[in-house]
Amino acid sequence: MTFQRIAIIGLGLQGGSIGLAVREYLPDAQTTGYDHLPETRARAAERSLVDQVCETAAEAVREAELVIFCVPPSAMGEAARACADAIPATALVSDVGSSKQAVAKALGEALPHHTIIPAHPVAGTENSGPDAGFASLFQNRWCIVTPPEPSNLLLLTGLVEFWEALGANVEIMDAQHHDLVLAVTSHLPHLIAYTIVGTASDLEAVTQSEVIKYSAGGFRDFTRIAASDPTMWRDVFLSNKDAVLEMLQRFTEDLTALQKAIRVGDGDTLFEHFSRTRAIRRSIIAEGQDDARPDFGRSDHGKI
Amino acid sequence: MTFQRIAIIGLGLQGGSIGLAVREYLPDAQTTGYDHLPETRARAAERSLVDQVCETAAEAVREAELVIFCVPPSAMGEAARACADAIPATALVSDVGSSKQAVAKALGEALPHHTIIPAHPVAGTENSGPDAGFASLFQNRWCIVTPPEPSNLLLLTGLVEFWEALGANVEIMDAQHHDLVLAVTSHLPHLIAYTIVGTASDLEAVTQSEVIKYSAGGFRDFTRIAASDPTMWRDVFLSNKDAVLEMLQRFTEDLTALQKAIRVGDGDTLFEHFSRTRAIRRSIIAEGQDDARPDFGRSDHGKI
Repeated sequence: MTFQRIAIIGLGLQGGSIGLAVREYLPDAQTTGYDHLPETRARAAERSLVDQVCETAAEAVREAELVIFCVPPSAMGEAARACADAIPATALVSDVGSSKQAVAKALGEALPHHTIIPAHPVAGTENSGPDAGFASLFQNRWCIVTPPEPSNLLLLTGLVEFWEALGANVEIMDAQHHDLVLAVTSHLPHLIAYTIVGTASDLEAVTQSEVIKYSAGGFRDFTRIAASDPTMWRDVFLSNKDAVLEMLQRFTEDLTALQKAIRVGDGDTLFEHFSRTRAIRRSIIAEGQDDARPDFGRSDHGKI
Repeated sequence: MTFQRIAIIGLGLQGGSIGLAVREYLPDAQTTGYDHLPETRARAAERSLVDQVCETAAEAVREAELVIFCVPPSAMGEAARACADAIPATALVSDVGSSKQAVAKALGEALPHHTIIPAHPVAGTENSGPDAGFASLFQNRWCIVTPPEPSNLLLLTGLVEFWEALGANVEIMDAQHHDLVLAVTSHLPHLIAYTIVGTASDLEAVTQSEVIKYSAGGFRDFTRIAASDPTMWRDVFLSNKDAVLEMLQRFTEDLTALQKAIRVGDGDTLFEHFSRTRAIRRSIIAEGQDDARPDFGRSDHGKI
């Protein structure tokens, strides 16, 4: 099962990257696309993110074999309802949402008669919108596919091969486990980053210009993910509430323990904790999930 | 006042980088160096981090015009006492410690008859030890100098010009304000990163291999600074306890507010907060304090 006609609903970072990646790695496939914002459609056409930018979602999906919804989690249901009648009965419907149980439910309610297999490419940058996408976004990144039970194996295989063609490594997982794993590897880090950047900008004793000036001491790392799309992330936290709150509870317990160690001057506890966390960095680099160069290979150290 | 003979005590990331930077940017100056670890001295000699690696600290400082202590905050006092008698009375004593009030106190007690002007280059990578240093570490980074009142203006000017020669922009600040500013721009981010990496590695429902696999969703950013030198960071938190605990208190309040917004489904509060934090990222990039490329310009997106 090789999808020849692919419709992309939502032409931001994810949708745009899929369009460009299909052109690069699946040159025989045809892509159509739609975004509810007229200015995004215009920019998508200028950048040729898809072969054909349509004026309605219905027009984009009409002949599709694969429809991928690339909109924020809270917009999935409405986006699907808007073109439900136009999606061919034989088409596979998928998405790229960062939470999977809630999105599967929303798509299922909007498209009760279609085959839906949700997916989540664990890839992105802090940029968003139709200018943010690029063809290599999914190279050597994981794409988690969360098929319902039972699933159409032919369509599932087709979806796996589609993501592999775009450069991703595919993992099959149930939606509930996905939401727990991503709560810790993605959602909690974003929440923490958003929080600390807000805390820093609110301090009256330290001016904003000082925070910016001395950000190379560590703070700047957090500002990157705290610059991510606010709509998308609002939706992620609301749609994966239970798992996020559980991870947050554990994080807070651990932070309280380190806070106490600082307060009582317990250097051994701090040292033991700080030593333990180094191994994870090494594993991430060994598995090709981050840049091995010091400081992520940032350009200001390019002179090494 | 141009320092011609510079002694560096401690030959890790900071000390080694200073040695290499002096050779690159102040080629007329002579450097001596010492580290209490024999293997670090041997590696420093192999890499020629300084012109002469000495077997004792006293030997390294004997003819110095500028002595820079590049050891963890808790080791400053002992390192200074070990060579106090050998430091020339006219020499300027400085350091690179990440907390300034505690280090100034420790150096002052160890060297009551010397001129001490502490400094803190806000630059580093997650690597440590004698292999971590490089000559361009301080280029376009800030170095904060915290002179006591009153200070010898000739020596202060000499220290400022020294750091400027190494490529840094110098800011004069009082030690207390330094400790507050760095608590938020550097110390709190490190504490948060160490905490979340520890939280993730302790989860029983999510395997460590899953955390590593899907780290590109945000988590990997935190693992970089959580791979920093445990000894150094234990000392930073213990030596800047009050400011760190104050910032942590504010962070926790803000996190609790966002947690509540998630729990009650208050999307407006989340969206408002997440929108506000984007501006800081833009300012950091505009001021040349971070890489403007998406995702820090990590190599896996080099194909853009």
